[in-house]
Amino acid sequence: MKRILIIGTGLSSISLIRYLEDQCLKNNWKLTVADRDIQVARARASVMTEALALDIMNEEQRDHIIENADIVISMLPVQFHLHVARSCLKFGKSLITASYESEAMRSLDAEAREKGILILNEMGLDPGIDHMSAMQLLNRIREQGHTLAGFESFTGGLVAPGSDDNPWHYKFSWNPEKVVRAGSDGPAKFIQEGKIKYIPYNRLFRRTEVIEVEPFGKFEGYANRDSMKYIEKYNLHGIPTIYRGTLRRPGFCSAWNVFVQLGATDDSYIMDNTENMTNREFINSFLYYSQRDSVELKLYHYMHIDQDSPIIEKLEWLGIFNDTRIGLKNATPAQILQHILNQKWKLEPTDRDLVVMWHKINYRVEGDERQRCLTSSLGVTGENRENTAMAKTVGLPMAIAAKLMLQGRITATGACIPTIEEIYVPVLKELREHGIFFTEKEYFC
Amino acid sequence: MKRILIIGTGLSSISLIRYLEDQCLKNNWKLTVADRDIQVARARASVMTEALALDIMNEEQRDHIIENADIVISMLPVQFHLHVARSCLKFGKSLITASYESEAMRSLDAEAREKGILILNEMGLDPGIDHMSAMQLLNRIREQGHTLAGFESFTGGLVAPGSDDNPWHYKFSWNPEKVVRAGSDGPAKFIQEGKIKYIPYNRLFRRTEVIEVEPFGKFEGYANRDSMKYIEKYNLHGIPTIYRGTLRRPGFCSAWNVFVQLGATDDSYIMDNTENMTNREFINSFLYYSQRDSVELKLYHYMHIDQDSPIIEKLEWLGIFNDTRIGLKNATPAQILQHILNQKWKLEPTDRDLVVMWHKINYRVEGDERQRCLTSSLGVTGENRENTAMAKTVGLPMAIAAKLMLQGRITATGACIPTIEEIYVPVLKELREHGIFFTEKEYFC
Repeated sequence: MKRILIIGTGLSSISLIRYLEDQCLKNNWKLTVADRDIQVARARASVMTEALALDIMNEEQRDHIIENADIVISMLPVQFHLHVARSCLKFGKSLITASYESEAMRSLDAEAREKGILILNEMGLDPGIDHMSAMQLLNRIREQGHTLAGFESFTGGLVAPGSDDNPWHYKFSWNPEKVVRAGSDGPAKFIQEGKIKYIPYNRLFRRTEVIEVEPFGKFEGYANRDSMKYIEKYNLHGIPTIYRGTLRRPGFCSAWNVFVQLGATDDSYIMDNTENMTNREFINSFLYYSQRDSVELKLYHYMHIDQDSPIIEKLEWLGIFNDTRIGLKNATPAQILQHILNQKWKLEPTDRDLVVMWHKINYRVEGDERQRCLTSSLGVTGENRENTAMAKTVGLPMAIAAKLMLQGRITATGACIPTIEEIYVPVLKELREHGIFFTEKEYFC
Repeated sequence: MKRILIIGTGLSSISLIRYLEDQCLKNNWKLTVADRDIQVARARASVMTEALALDIMNEEQRDHIIENADIVISMLPVQFHLHVARSCLKFGKSLITASYESEAMRSLDAEAREKGILILNEMGLDPGIDHMSAMQLLNRIREQGHTLAGFESFTGGLVAPGSDDNPWHYKFSWNPEKVVRAGSDGPAKFIQEGKIKYIPYNRLFRRTEVIEVEPFGKFEGYANRDSMKYIEKYNLHGIPTIYRGTLRRPGFCSAWNVFVQLGATDDSYIMDNTENMTNREFINSFLYYSQRDSVELKLYHYMHIDQDSPIIEKLEWLGIFNDTRIGLKNATPAQILQHILNQKWKLEPTDRDLVVMWHKINYRVEGDERQRCLTSSLGVTGENRENTAMAKTVGLPMAIAAKLMLQGRITATGACIPTIEEIYVPVLKELREHGIFFTEKEYFC
């Protein structure tokens, strides 16, 4: 009897657990879920599944539980994966995560090969489905002998039209902390027509492009950190344009930019006296002093926001000018902003989220001077606040990969991401059965 | 015979060495200057002075040379001071620097007291003369029984009117690296009318105020990092306004802001292929791609610079649009920008620099409702590129303090900055003899 171990049972593990419990029934496998909090682990799983308490930093506990598994899936925050990986190496167990492959993970490649195990990172949505769907498209075009001229790829975790009831057209379906800090870790870097471009954080939300993804409508995209890394990952050497980004609904970025410009997304320092601060005082602390003018007018003037700008409705709707006490001790600006947003951008129990992914590939067919454009788009709608499109698109790729690995249908070893045909072909095929599939369109551009 | 040791003999040590050589003649003391490069040390000193080669990271060498001195002045970059301080503690020798007192330096206080030595940091211009002149003023007003209502203080290292021949009205008289990176280490923080204010880096050069310092004319000031630290340093608890900043000539900051907004002052990442990059390509790498538009127009459009803006002359004068090869390997944006500026903002051999410092103190006299305003300003003009006002105002306070300490006229021990009366009264008095003095003005505001 094969044993699957899932470590970390946060909200995003729901689809993963549901799929694997189903597979355990079909294949007579055993699923174990482990969490710091055994109540959380129990609540997430059926009676057929074993739930355990696990302190991940306790090596003995960790080793014991991993030794008893045949395959391990880590849903923990990224900083814990390496500990899990080391125990997996010790006992020769394969590991799957949905996180970016760190340098340290990468460096385990040789040892993993030697032990004959697969450490499969970046096996969620973004990173994950983006890699798999892009590689399938790119390889198809390459195999047809065409010449690639450009690759763009955008993903967004948003709110489905029926649940979209706020002027930002946005709710949190993903780690709010990462949403607030998005882009602040360094300049975005990409290449366009052979020219390398850098966008500093303070300009990121003003350098957007409009993207229409049928049938979901219009979005705006801002650049993700280092698109040029994907030249190596996708074997795109010599391609003149490569650009990866994040999707929001039109108007989001210019309003979000107000917080960036104010300094309200800064997570690098603790503000004074945040416990007694109100939302209004928080905003005012970034504005010049005035004896008479309102915080509202000072902000609009400072940010050159016209009286009829749609930004105003967005800002006021968030309640940033209210006299509500924040009540957080020793908080950074980013933590305070997140606290304010959490109350407004929270998914309600019946809200449905929306995941959108969109690739655009430009290429030329030999003997034809016209440039062709192939777009491929994915849209997944969630069921409710618990069964989100986000949890489904992050969890199912890992779950399917785990199944394929246990069935011996994935034979790769070492530290990998799912850009390998042996992985992406069967996983994408099965994702289609779960309603996760791309629609292509082609035209001359 | 007392022995003075100066470690580090860069350009800014000229006035320091000159003053102490003169004191050595008068008092029959001995001066030793030590530098990594003995040729530099020799060139800087007279034949009466001993010049030595010193590898500061070589503990044995460092200990030996410090053991032989009675007092040590470190002109090294700030990261080396701690090594010097440890050797000073070992042999019971006092130490003077012009650098900000780090936490690590601060923590040597008890040990320095125990050993009976003085570790005197922040003994240059800014920090240095700013502390001494401010404390003298503030204490005078406090001793008169008045109530302090506000303290502002600005300093600038600029170029004297006769040598001011460029549209930025600026040349480097101080570490260019620090000028390029100024403000990028975190938000500026100050307090105005009891409200704490934060200015993020991306807004710093747009939140300036105009300051007139007679007879030098108009300047603009932008905020320095954390003004609130000075509440403790100057014993200003309860003061409703405190603001410290840097002076530039009007128009400098809005033009400099273009580089900040572009991301050209970022020192956190290495750009691609900088060796073969031209000035024009450097600027273009921060701008959107266009097949037809010029780099100039793209920049002006991106930054909302009008066709008749004085910013245009400043940018074009720097040659940022030229096809000049930069020729730096693996450089950060800040390093490239500094390289471009170095060629244009360099002091010529006969150029004279200008140091300006300006304090403004608001206070109330008991029984009088009117607020009074006392301004105190300093202006020092250099002689030429070598004997700069910067070197003089940084070096003389340290030199004078060293003399007073050797004469037993400063008895403080521990880790100090010159906010102590015993230090600032005699040092300011002697600085006056060297043409470094403040002019006061008082009015109702």
